Amino acid sequence: METIKPSQNSPIGIFDSGLGGLTVLKSLEKILPNESFLYFGDTAHVPYGTKSAETVIRYSQHIMDFFQKHETKAVVIACNTASAVAYQQLQQIYKIPLFDVVTPSVEYSINITKSKNVGVVGTFSTIQSNAYTKMFKKLGSGCFVKEVPCPLFVPIIEEGWADTAIAKNIAETYLKEFQDCNIDTLILGCTHYPIMANTIQDVLSKHIELIYSGKTVGIKLKEYLKNQNCENSSNTSQSVKYYVTDFPQKFDELGSRFLGRQLNNVTHIPIV
Amino acid sequence: METIKPSQNSPIGIFDSGLGGLTVLKSLEKILPNESFLYFGDTAHVPYGTKSAETVIRYSQHIMDFFQKHETKAVVIACNTASAVAYQQLQQIYKIPLFDVVTPSVEYSINITKSKNVGVVGTFSTIQSNAYTKMFKKLGSGCFVKEVPCPLFVPIIEEGWADTAIAKNIAETYLKEFQDCNIDTLILGCTHYPIMANTIQDVLSKHIELIYSGKTVGIKLKEYLKNQNCENSSNTSQSVKYYVTDFPQKFDELGSRFLGRQLNNVTHIPIV
Repeated sequence: METIKPSQNSPIGIFDSGLGGLTVLKSLEKILPNESFLYFGDTAHVPYGTKSAETVIRYSQHIMDFFQKHETKAVVIACNTASAVAYQQLQQIYKIPLFDVVTPSVEYSINITKSKNVGVVGTFSTIQSNAYTKMFKKLGSGCFVKEVPCPLFVPIIEEGWADTAIAKNIAETYLKEFQDCNIDTLILGCTHYPIMANTIQDVLSKHIELIYSGKTVGIKLKEYLKNQNCENSSNTSQSVKYYVTDFPQKFDELGSRFLGRQLNNVTHIPIV
Repeated sequence: METIKPSQNSPIGIFDSGLGGLTVLKSLEKILPNESFLYFGDTAHVPYGTKSAETVIRYSQHIMDFFQKHETKAVVIACNTASAVAYQQLQQIYKIPLFDVVTPSVEYSINITKSKNVGVVGTFSTIQSNAYTKMFKKLGSGCFVKEVPCPLFVPIIEEGWADTAIAKNIAETYLKEFQDCNIDTLILGCTHYPIMANTIQDVLSKHIELIYSGKTVGIKLKEYLKNQNCENSSNTSQSVKYYVTDFPQKFDELGSRFLGRQLNNVTHIPIV
């Protein structure tokens, strides 16, 4: 990855098709308490998971142009669909250090799995892309990987029903696909899914460990910044600015559910 | 409504944020067997139901420009969100005779309800707009109107689970809101919902009549074309052309589920 040398005190960019990536931001804030962030939610085009790869790449380029203009020192693609279909192309086009959410979770899972059987849940398009299976193969893990699409998890989370009997029923229907696979590790391959982690864990055997992409990409980003001597050295407190392309329904409600607090400093960027 | 005089043999335009409007097309084909249609699905921006009114109006204008260029003799907004938030503005801008899906269903319901208590189900944004309640009031119906958002109906239909126990469970959860309202008429205020009509009817008292917007707008459009002496008089057989702004996941599967047959003559219009 040919990248530009980032400036220590510049912010870190995070983007997602919508607000789901706020779960990643929440993890990054904890792991990197001295860093500041720009969060970009492409809410006018949400969801990416139902769009073609070509369209997702086009939208992602507009966001990367925005981050380039704002001189972010690194960018996290906090969206599994964009990570799966746009990461490689964006790496070739932009010189900003770029982190996807697929690779770190795969690396982390390879390190902890004992059964060498790993499960992945995600949206239809993420699973259809086979991005996780390909990455496990690329890293020569020798793991058996079972990927299962769970398209109803996002809408049920957005409805606020993540901890209901209906959510459990839906989770049972999807997750029974794993029952004969002897997995000990399950990657939550969608940034919405941490909100539903209790229900998912409830349906699975207790010994199966859930992998959160916010945590795994955070660990990787921290290492990178340290190695590059690029950690924020100023004494200013952590700040976050939010940019969205639309103010959708339930914006405040959803945002605070994902982030665990109210969103402030939100700027509307109508056309990207 | 100041409109241009349509040409008899021109096609009728139909648009939706995605493929749900195909259920309206299906009804129109039956009611108007001599007419030809252009169907426009704005699949790069689907769903409209989670976008702001401003954004939905902008997208709808692009589609109306397309229909204007193609000289359609009338346009049906086969999308409840666009009908609710963009219809009036589009009427002021364009001279093409324009039909929404809210007004005809309200007029039809006023004619058939005996209890004068009418229910409406739709997406969050359609219900939030209060478009149905406002139209019942505007027409001086004297009806009591109860509107209930059912945000999970669309994703459960798109998952192909419309006739499952989970769908019934979700429908029971939403529709119990109507149990003390003595409604005898329920407007399906979303073009997806006809696919789930059996489950919805199963949960409700048998005497409650479901209202399909494809049927009600079809009857109104037929009357209009007759009054204007604008029915297609040529002997050519009915034709349909489809235009979409993206080829999303499950495109063929969804399209054929909504339409009851395969989609042919599909043209991709990348940027609208």
